[in-house]
Amino acid sequence: MAETIAIIGGTGPEGRGLATRLVLAGHTVIIGSRDAERGASIAAELKASLPARDGAGALRGGGNAEACSEATLAIVTVPYSAHAPTLEALRGPLSGKLVVDAVVPVRFERGPRPVEVAAGSATEEAAALLPDSTVVGAFHNLDAETLLDPDLPVDADVLLTGGSEGKRRTGALAEQIAGVRAVDAGPLRYSRFVEGITILLIGINGRHRAHTGIRIAGLPEGE
Amino acid sequence: MAETIAIIGGTGPEGRGLATRLVLAGHTVIIGSRDAERGASIAAELKASLPARDGAGALRGGGNAEACSEATLAIVTVPYSAHAPTLEALRGPLSGKLVVDAVVPVRFERGPRPVEVAAGSATEEAAALLPDSTVVGAFHNLDAETLLDPDLPVDADVLLTGGSEGKRRTGALAEQIAGVRAVDAGPLRYSRFVEGITILLIGINGRHRAHTGIRIAGLPEGE
Repeated sequence: MAETIAIIGGTGPEGRGLATRLVLAGHTVIIGSRDAERGASIAAELKASLPARDGAGALRGGGNAEACSEATLAIVTVPYSAHAPTLEALRGPLSGKLVVDAVVPVRFERGPRPVEVAAGSATEEAAALLPDSTVVGAFHNLDAETLLDPDLPVDADVLLTGGSEGKRRTGALAEQIAGVRAVDAGPLRYSRFVEGITILLIGINGRHRAHTGIRIAGLPEGE
Repeated sequence: MAETIAIIGGTGPEGRGLATRLVLAGHTVIIGSRDAERGASIAAELKASLPARDGAGALRGGGNAEACSEATLAIVTVPYSAHAPTLEALRGPLSGKLVVDAVVPVRFERGPRPVEVAAGSATEEAAALLPDSTVVGAFHNLDAETLLDPDLPVDADVLLTGGSEGKRRTGALAEQIAGVRAVDAGPLRYSRFVEGITILLIGINGRHRAHTGIRIAGLPEGE
Protein backbone atom coordinates (compact mmCIF):
# COMPACT_ATOMS: atom_id res chain seq x y z
CA MET A 1 0.00 0.00 0.00
CA ALA A 2 1.42 3.38 -0.97
CA GLU A 3 1.89 5.68 2.02
CA THR A 4 2.16 9.43 2.16
CA ILE A 5 5.32 9.86 4.17
CA ALA A 6 6.46 13.05 5.90
CA ILE A 7 10.17 13.17 6.60
CA ILE A 8 10.48 15.52 9.55
CA GLY A 9 13.73 17.42 9.27
CA GLY A 10 14.20 15.69 5.95
CA THR A 11 16.64 18.12 4.34
CA GLY A 12 19.77 16.42 5.77
CA PRO A 13 21.55 13.46 4.14
CA GLU A 14 19.63 10.73 6.04
CA GLY A 15 16.26 12.34 5.26
CA ARG A 16 17.08 12.89 1.60
CA GLY A 17 18.49 9.38 1.37
CA LEU A 18 15.32 7.79 2.76
CA ALA A 19 13.21 10.07 0.54
CA THR A 20 15.17 8.87 -2.50
CA ARG A 21 14.52 5.21 -1.81
CA LEU A 22 10.91 5.57 -0.67
CA VAL A 23 9.86 7.71 -3.66
CA LEU A 24 11.41 5.15 -6.02
CA ALA A 25 9.45 2.44 -4.14
CA GLY A 26 6.23 4.23 -5.09
CA HIS A 27 5.37 6.26 -2.01
CA THR A 28 4.49 9.93 -1.89
CA VAL A 29 7.18 11.67 0.14
CA ILE A 30 7.01 15.14 1.64
CA ILE A 31 10.31 16.53 2.86
CA GLY A 32 9.52 18.62 5.91
CA SER A 33 11.68 21.40 7.28
CA ARG A 34 11.23 24.03 9.96
CA ASP A 35 11.68 26.39 6.99
CA ALA A 36 8.92 25.55 4.46
CA GLU A 37 10.73 27.20 1.55
CA ARG A 38 13.88 25.25 2.25
CA GLY A 39 11.84 22.03 2.42
CA ALA A 40 10.29 22.80 -0.95
CA SER A 41 13.56 23.74 -2.64
CA ILE A 42 15.49 20.72 -1.31
CA ALA A 43 12.65 18.47 -2.49
CA ALA A 44 12.70 20.08 -5.95
CA GLU A 45 16.46 19.64 -6.18
CA LEU A 46 16.30 16.00 -5.08
CA LYS A 47 13.43 15.30 -7.47
CA ALA A 48 15.44 16.67 -10.40
CA SER A 49 18.33 14.36 -9.52
CA LEU A 50 16.28 11.14 -9.36
CA PRO A 51 16.34 8.64 -12.21
CA ALA A 52 13.06 8.14 -14.07
CA ARG A 53 11.60 4.87 -12.75
CA ASP A 54 8.29 3.20 -13.46
CA GLY A 55 6.01 3.32 -10.46
CA ALA A 56 7.90 6.05 -8.62
CA GLY A 57 5.84 8.20 -6.29
CA ALA A 58 5.55 11.95 -5.91
CA LEU A 59 8.08 14.07 -4.05
CA ARG A 60 7.49 17.52 -2.65
CA GLY A 61 8.56 19.59 0.32
CA GLY A 62 7.24 22.10 2.81
CA GLY A 63 7.00 22.94 6.49
CA ASN A 64 7.14 20.13 9.06
CA ALA A 65 3.58 20.71 10.35
CA GLU A 66 2.06 20.85 6.89
CA ALA A 67 3.98 17.71 5.85
CA CYS A 68 2.77 15.85 8.95
CA SER A 69 -0.84 16.93 8.44
CA GLU A 70 -0.90 15.42 4.98
CA ALA A 71 1.05 12.29 5.84
CA THR A 72 -0.17 8.83 6.78
CA LEU A 73 3.22 8.08 8.38
CA ALA A 74 6.14 10.26 9.49
CA ILE A 75 9.85 9.54 9.75
CA VAL A 76 11.93 11.71 12.10
CA THR A 77 15.45 12.61 10.93
CA VAL A 78 16.20 15.86 12.75
CA PRO A 79 19.54 16.31 14.53
CA TYR A 80 19.14 15.22 18.14
CA SER A 81 19.47 18.80 19.39
CA ALA A 82 16.17 19.62 17.63
CA HIS A 83 14.43 16.34 18.55
CA ALA A 84 12.30 17.27 21.57
CA PRO A 85 11.21 20.79 20.53
CA THR A 86 10.36 19.67 16.99
CA LEU A 87 8.20 16.74 18.10
CA GLU A 88 6.51 18.72 20.85
CA ALA A 89 5.33 21.24 18.26
CA LEU A 90 4.01 18.47 15.99
CA ARG A 91 1.91 16.59 18.55
CA GLY A 92 -1.35 17.70 16.91
CA PRO A 93 -0.58 16.87 13.26
CA LEU A 94 1.02 13.55 14.31
CA SER A 95 -1.91 12.46 16.44
CA GLY A 96 -3.21 9.02 15.50
CA LYS A 97 -0.32 8.40 13.10
CA LEU A 98 2.67 6.09 12.94
CA VAL A 99 5.88 7.97 13.74
CA VAL A 100 9.17 6.25 12.91
CA ASP A 101 12.08 7.74 14.81
CA ALA A 102 15.51 7.42 13.18
CA VAL A 103 17.31 9.94 15.37
CA VAL A 104 20.57 9.09 17.12
CA PRO A 105 21.53 11.08 20.22
CA VAL A 106 25.07 11.89 19.16
CA ARG A 107 27.36 14.89 19.24
CA PHE A 108 30.75 15.28 17.62
CA GLU A 109 33.79 16.18 19.66
CA ARG A 110 36.94 14.36 18.52
CA GLY A 111 34.72 11.61 17.15
CA PRO A 112 31.08 10.75 17.74
CA ARG A 113 29.92 10.72 21.37
CA PRO A 114 26.57 9.72 22.84
CA VAL A 115 24.28 12.36 24.32
CA GLU A 116 22.64 11.15 27.52
CA VAL A 117 18.86 11.06 27.12
CA ALA A 118 16.75 11.07 30.29
CA ALA A 119 14.10 8.89 28.62
CA GLY A 120 16.78 6.29 27.77
CA SER A 121 16.75 6.83 24.00
CA ALA A 122 15.53 9.28 21.39
CA THR A 123 12.75 6.88 20.42
CA GLU A 124 11.45 6.58 24.00
CA GLU A 125 11.62 10.38 24.25
CA ALA A 126 9.48 10.61 21.11
CA ALA A 127 6.97 8.16 22.55
CA ALA A 128 6.70 10.27 25.71
CA LEU A 129 6.25 13.49 23.70
CA LEU A 130 3.69 11.98 21.32
CA PRO A 131 1.21 10.10 23.51
CA ASP A 132 -1.42 10.04 20.75
CA SER A 133 0.90 8.57 18.10
CA THR A 134 2.33 5.09 17.59
CA VAL A 135 6.12 5.45 17.86
CA VAL A 136 8.58 2.95 16.41
CA GLY A 137 12.39 3.14 16.18
CA ALA A 138 13.96 2.24 12.81
CA PHE A 139 16.37 3.28 10.02
CA HIS A 140 19.11 4.49 12.40
CA ASN A 141 21.78 2.27 10.98
CA LEU A 142 21.35 2.86 7.25
CA ASP A 143 24.21 4.76 5.65
CA ALA A 144 22.97 8.07 4.24
CA GLU A 145 25.48 8.25 1.39
CA THR A 146 24.46 4.81 0.19
CA LEU A 147 20.75 5.65 0.36
CA LEU A 148 21.34 8.82 -1.66
CA ASP A 149 22.64 6.88 -4.67
CA PRO A 150 19.72 4.78 -5.92
CA ASP A 151 22.10 2.59 -7.93
CA LEU A 152 24.09 1.49 -4.89
CA PRO A 153 22.94 -1.74 -3.23
CA VAL A 154 22.04 -1.46 0.43
CA ASP A 155 23.55 -4.28 2.49
CA ALA A 156 22.01 -3.83 5.91
CA ASP A 157 19.34 -4.91 8.34
CA VAL A 158 16.92 -2.36 9.76
CA LEU A 159 16.39 -3.03 13.46
CA LEU A 160 12.89 -2.20 14.67
CA THR A 161 11.81 -1.35 18.21
CA GLY A 162 8.31 -0.68 19.51
CA GLY A 163 4.89 -2.32 19.40
CA SER A 164 4.06 -5.20 17.05
CA GLU A 165 1.68 -3.48 14.66
CA GLY A 166 3.91 -0.42 14.20
CA LYS A 167 6.93 -2.64 13.62
CA ARG A 168 5.05 -4.73 11.08
CA ARG A 169 4.10 -1.68 9.01
CA THR A 170 7.55 -0.08 9.35
CA GLY A 171 9.29 -3.35 8.50
CA ALA A 172 7.24 -3.76 5.33
CA LEU A 173 8.23 -0.22 4.33
CA ALA A 174 11.92 -0.82 5.10
CA GLU A 175 12.03 -3.99 3.02
CA GLN A 176 10.93 -2.04 -0.05
CA ILE A 177 14.47 -0.65 -0.03
CA ALA A 178 16.40 -3.23 -2.06
CA GLY A 179 18.88 -5.15 0.08
CA VAL A 180 17.27 -4.27 3.39
CA ARG A 181 15.93 -6.89 5.77
CA ALA A 182 13.79 -5.78 8.70
CA VAL A 183 14.54 -7.43 12.06
CA ASP A 184 12.39 -7.12 15.16
CA ALA A 185 14.81 -5.82 17.79
CA GLY A 186 12.34 -5.81 20.65
CA PRO A 187 10.44 -3.30 22.76
CA LEU A 188 10.92 0.48 22.81
CA ARG A 189 13.24 0.21 25.80
CA TYR A 190 15.83 -1.51 23.57
CA SER A 191 16.01 1.54 21.31
CA ARG A 192 19.09 2.81 23.10
CA PHE A 193 21.05 -0.20 21.87
CA VAL A 194 19.98 0.31 18.26
CA GLU A 195 20.83 4.01 18.46
CA GLY A 196 24.20 3.11 19.98
CA ILE A 197 25.07 0.87 17.03
CA THR A 198 25.03 3.94 14.80
CA ILE A 199 27.75 5.54 16.91
CA LEU A 200 29.87 2.40 16.48
CA LEU A 201 29.25 2.45 12.72
CA ILE A 202 30.16 6.14 12.39
CA GLY A 203 33.46 5.35 14.11
CA ILE A 204 34.10 2.27 11.95
CA ASN A 205 33.23 4.23 8.80
CA GLY A 206 35.74 6.91 9.75
CA ARG A 207 38.55 4.45 10.42
CA HIS A 208 37.94 2.41 7.26
CA ARG A 209 36.63 5.15 4.93
CA ALA A 210 33.69 2.79 4.43
CA HIS A 211 29.90 2.93 4.43
CA THR A 212 28.95 0.13 6.74
CA GLY A 213 25.69 -1.32 7.99
CA ILE A 214 24.77 -4.00 10.48
CA ARG A 215 23.60 -7.55 9.76
CA ILE A 216 22.19 -10.05 12.22
CA ALA A 217 23.83 -13.35 11.27
CA GLY A 218 22.24 -16.69 12.02
CA LEU A 219 18.56 -15.84 11.63
CA PRO A 220 16.48 -18.51 9.93
CA GLU A 221 15.72 -17.67 6.27
CA GLY A 222 12.45 -16.02 5.50
CA GLU A 223 11.88 -14.49 8.91
CA MET B 1 52.05 -17.48 19.30
CA ALA B 2 50.38 -19.82 21.77
CA GLU B 3 49.07 -18.00 24.82
CA THR B 4 48.27 -19.32 28.26
CA ILE B 5 44.75 -18.03 28.75
CA ALA B 6 42.90 -17.78 32.06
CA ILE B 7 39.14 -17.65 31.71
CA ILE B 8 37.97 -15.86 34.83
CA GLY B 9 34.60 -17.25 35.85
CA GLY B 10 35.01 -19.71 33.02
CA THR B 11 32.62 -22.40 34.22
CA GLY B 12 29.53 -20.87 32.54
CA PRO B 13 28.50 -21.49 28.92
CA GLU B 14 30.37 -18.49 27.45
CA GLY B 15 33.57 -19.36 29.31
CA ARG B 16 33.41 -23.03 28.38
CA GLY B 17 32.55 -22.10 24.79
CA LEU B 18 35.57 -19.82 24.44
CA ALA B 19 37.74 -22.45 26.16
CA THR B 20 36.58 -25.04 23.63
CA ARG B 21 37.56 -22.95 20.64
CA LEU B 22 40.80 -21.59 22.05
CA VAL B 23 42.10 -25.00 23.17
CA LEU B 24 41.40 -26.40 19.72
CA ALA B 25 43.29 -23.41 18.27
CA GLY B 26 46.36 -24.54 20.18
CA HIS B 27 46.35 -22.36 23.28
CA THR B 28 46.70 -23.52 26.87
CA VAL B 29 43.48 -22.63 28.65
CA ILE B 30 42.89 -22.55 32.40
CA ILE B 31 39.27 -22.37 33.45
CA GLY B 32 39.18 -20.25 36.59
CA SER B 33 36.44 -20.32 39.19
CA ARG B 34 36.02 -18.79 42.64
CA ASP B 35 35.84 -22.46 43.67
CA ALA B 36 39.11 -24.11 42.57
CA GLU B 37 37.69 -27.63 42.71
CA ARG B 38 34.75 -26.66 40.55
CA GLY B 39 37.12 -25.02 38.04
CA ALA B 40 39.17 -28.23 37.89
CA SER B 41 36.18 -30.55 37.53
CA ILE B 42 34.45 -28.45 34.85
CA ALA B 43 37.73 -28.31 32.92
CA ALA B 44 38.15 -32.09 33.18
CA GLU B 45 34.58 -32.63 31.98
CA LEU B 46 35.02 -30.25 29.06
CA LYS B 47 38.36 -31.80 28.14
CA ALA B 48 36.77 -35.26 28.00
CA SER B 49 34.11 -33.96 25.61
CA LEU B 50 36.50 -32.35 23.11
CA PRO B 51 37.31 -34.06 19.82
CA ALA B 52 40.92 -35.13 19.34
CA ARG B 53 42.52 -32.52 17.08
CA ASP B 54 46.11 -32.10 15.95
CA GLY B 55 47.72 -29.11 17.54
CA ALA B 56 45.17 -28.69 20.32
CA GLY B 57 46.47 -27.07 23.49
CA ALA B 58 46.16 -28.10 27.13
CA LEU B 59 43.07 -27.51 29.22
CA ARG B 60 42.90 -27.43 32.99
CA GLY B 61 41.04 -25.63 35.72
CA GLY B 62 41.52 -24.11 39.15
CA GLY B 63 40.95 -21.01 41.24
CA ASN B 64 40.70 -17.63 39.53
CA ALA B 65 43.82 -16.20 41.20
CA GLU B 66 45.95 -19.23 40.42
CA ALA B 67 44.69 -19.25 36.81
CA CYS B 68 45.53 -15.55 36.39
CA SER B 69 49.00 -15.96 37.92
CA GLU B 70 49.93 -18.58 35.34
CA ALA B 71 48.27 -16.85 32.38
CA THR B 72 49.75 -14.53 29.76
CA LEU B 73 46.23 -13.23 29.00
CA ALA B 74 42.90 -13.40 30.81
CA ILE B 75 39.32 -13.36 29.52
CA VAL B 76 36.58 -12.28 31.93
CA THR B 77 33.26 -14.15 31.67
CA VAL B 78 31.76 -13.79 35.16
CA PRO B 79 28.11 -12.75 35.53
CA TYR B 80 27.97 -8.97 35.87
CA SER B 81 26.92 -9.21 39.53
CA ALA B 82 30.36 -10.71 40.29
CA HIS B 83 32.32 -8.41 37.94
CA ALA B 84 33.69 -5.71 40.25
CA PRO B 85 34.47 -7.85 43.34
CA THR B 86 36.12 -10.57 41.24
CA LEU B 87 38.39 -8.18 39.35
CA GLU B 88 39.27 -6.18 42.45
CA ALA B 89 40.56 -9.35 44.09
CA LEU B 90 42.66 -10.23 41.01
CA ARG B 91 44.45 -6.90 40.59
CA GLY B 92 47.79 -8.42 41.65
CA PRO B 93 47.84 -11.55 39.47
CA LEU B 94 46.52 -9.55 36.48
CA SER B 95 49.12 -6.79 36.80
CA GLY B 96 51.01 -6.22 33.55
CA LYS B 97 48.73 -8.56 31.60
CA LEU B 98 46.17 -8.22 28.85
CA VAL B 99 42.64 -8.61 30.24
CA VAL B 100 39.83 -9.14 27.73
CA ASP B 101 36.44 -8.32 29.20
CA ALA B 102 33.46 -10.13 27.68
CA VAL B 103 30.97 -9.29 30.42
CA VAL B 104 27.56 -7.79 29.62
CA PRO B 105 25.78 -5.82 32.35
CA VAL B 106 22.43 -7.55 32.03
CA ARG B 107 19.81 -8.92 34.38
CA PHE B 108 16.76 -11.00 33.52
CA GLU B 109 13.29 -9.87 34.48
CA ARG B 110 10.72 -10.62 31.83
CA GLY B 111 13.48 -10.58 29.22
CA PRO B 112 17.01 -9.22 29.35
CA ARG B 113 17.45 -5.73 30.81
CA PRO B 114 20.56 -3.58 31.05
CA VAL B 115 22.16 -2.90 34.41
CA GLU B 116 23.32 0.72 34.72
CA VAL B 117 27.08 0.88 35.23
CA ALA B 118 28.51 4.04 36.76
CA ALA B 119 31.70 3.67 34.67
CA GLY B 120 29.59 3.51 31.48
CA SER B 121 30.27 -0.14 30.68
CA ALA B 122 31.63 -3.30 32.24
CA THR B 123 34.85 -2.93 30.24
CA GLU B 124 35.46 0.63 31.46
CA GLU B 125 34.75 -0.58 35.00
CA ALA B 126 37.39 -3.29 34.52
CA ALA B 127 39.88 -0.72 33.26
CA ALA B 128 39.26 1.43 36.34
CA LEU B 129 39.66 -1.56 38.69
CA LEU B 130 42.81 -2.86 36.97
CA PRO B 131 45.05 0.17 36.48
CA ASP B 132 48.14 -2.00 35.97
CA SER B 133 46.58 -4.18 33.25
CA THR B 134 45.74 -3.53 29.61
CA VAL B 135 41.96 -3.91 29.30
CA VAL B 136 40.18 -4.61 26.03
CA GLY B 137 36.49 -5.37 25.40
CA ALA B 138 35.71 -8.34 23.11
CA PHE B 139 33.79 -11.60 22.63
CA HIS B 140 30.50 -10.21 24.05
CA ASN B 141 28.46 -11.05 20.99
CA LEU B 142 29.53 -14.64 20.32
CA ASP B 143 26.79 -17.17 20.97
CA ALA B 144 27.83 -19.56 23.74
CA GLU B 145 25.90 -22.57 22.43
CA THR B 146 27.58 -22.24 19.05
CA LEU B 147 31.04 -21.93 20.61
CA LEU B 148 30.43 -25.05 22.70
CA ASP B 149 29.99 -27.24 19.63
CA PRO B 150 33.35 -27.24 17.82
CA ASP B 151 31.70 -28.58 14.65
CA LEU B 152 29.33 -25.61 14.30
CA PRO B 153 30.58 -22.75 12.15
CA VAL B 154 30.72 -19.36 13.84
CA ASP B 155 29.22 -16.60 11.67
CA ALA B 156 30.01 -13.42 13.58
CA ASP B 157 32.28 -10.45 13.95
CA VAL B 158 34.03 -9.79 17.25
CA LEU B 159 33.93 -6.07 18.02
CA LEU B 160 37.00 -4.82 19.87
CA THR B 161 37.27 -1.76 22.10
CA GLY B 162 40.33 -0.37 23.81
CA GLY B 163 43.90 0.59 22.94
CA SER B 164 45.53 -0.40 19.65
CA GLU B 165 48.08 -2.93 20.86
CA GLY B 166 45.58 -4.78 23.07
CA LYS B 167 43.04 -4.86 20.24
CA ARG B 168 45.65 -6.18 17.80
CA ARG B 169 46.56 -9.08 20.08
CA THR B 170 42.93 -9.83 20.99
CA GLY B 171 41.83 -9.59 17.36
CA ALA B 172 44.48 -12.09 16.29
CA LEU B 173 43.24 -14.47 18.99
CA ALA B 174 39.58 -14.00 18.00
CA GLU B 175 40.30 -14.74 14.35
CA GLN B 176 41.70 -18.15 15.29
CA ILE B 177 38.06 -19.12 15.89
CA ALA B 178 36.91 -20.26 12.44
CA GLY B 179 34.34 -17.89 10.96
CA VAL B 180 35.17 -14.96 13.22
CA ARG B 181 36.34 -11.62 11.89
CA ALA B 182 37.73 -9.07 14.34
CA VAL B 183 36.57 -5.47 13.85
CA ASP B 184 38.05 -2.47 15.63
CA ALA B 185 35.00 -0.85 17.26
CA GLY B 186 36.88 2.09 18.75
CA PRO B 187 37.98 3.33 22.15
CA LEU B 188 37.01 1.90 25.55
CA ARG B 189 34.19 4.45 25.88
CA TYR B 190 32.33 2.71 23.04
CA SER B 191 32.20 -0.55 25.01
CA ARG B 192 28.68 0.23 26.22
CA PHE B 193 27.41 -0.02 22.65
CA VAL B 194 29.09 -3.38 22.06
CA GLU B 195 27.74 -4.69 25.37
CA GLY B 196 24.27 -3.40 24.41
CA ILE B 197 24.29 -5.39 21.17
CA THR B 198 24.36 -8.58 23.23
CA ILE B 199 21.09 -7.60 24.90
CA LEU B 200 19.53 -7.09 21.47
CA LEU B 201 20.84 -10.49 20.33
CA ILE B 202 19.54 -12.28 23.44
CA GLY B 203 16.10 -10.85 22.68
CA ILE B 204 16.30 -11.75 18.97
CA ASN B 205 17.49 -15.28 19.85
CA GLY B 206 14.52 -15.73 22.15
CA ARG B 207 11.97 -14.54 19.58
CA HIS B 208 13.43 -16.61 16.73
CA ARG B 209 14.81 -19.59 18.70
CA ALA B 210 18.06 -18.78 16.92
CA HIS B 211 21.74 -18.36 17.76
CA THR B 212 22.59 -15.04 16.17
CA GLY B 213 25.70 -12.94 15.90
CA ILE B 214 26.47 -9.54 14.49
CA ARG B 215 28.21 -8.71 11.21
CA ILE B 216 29.44 -5.34 10.05
CA ALA B 217 28.46 -5.18 6.36
CA GLY B 218 30.30 -3.01 3.87
CA LEU B 219 33.85 -3.23 5.22
CA PRO B 220 36.54 -3.51 2.56
CA GLU B 221 37.86 -7.07 2.20
CA GLY B 222 41.01 -7.98 4.07
CA GLU B 223 40.66 -5.34 6.75
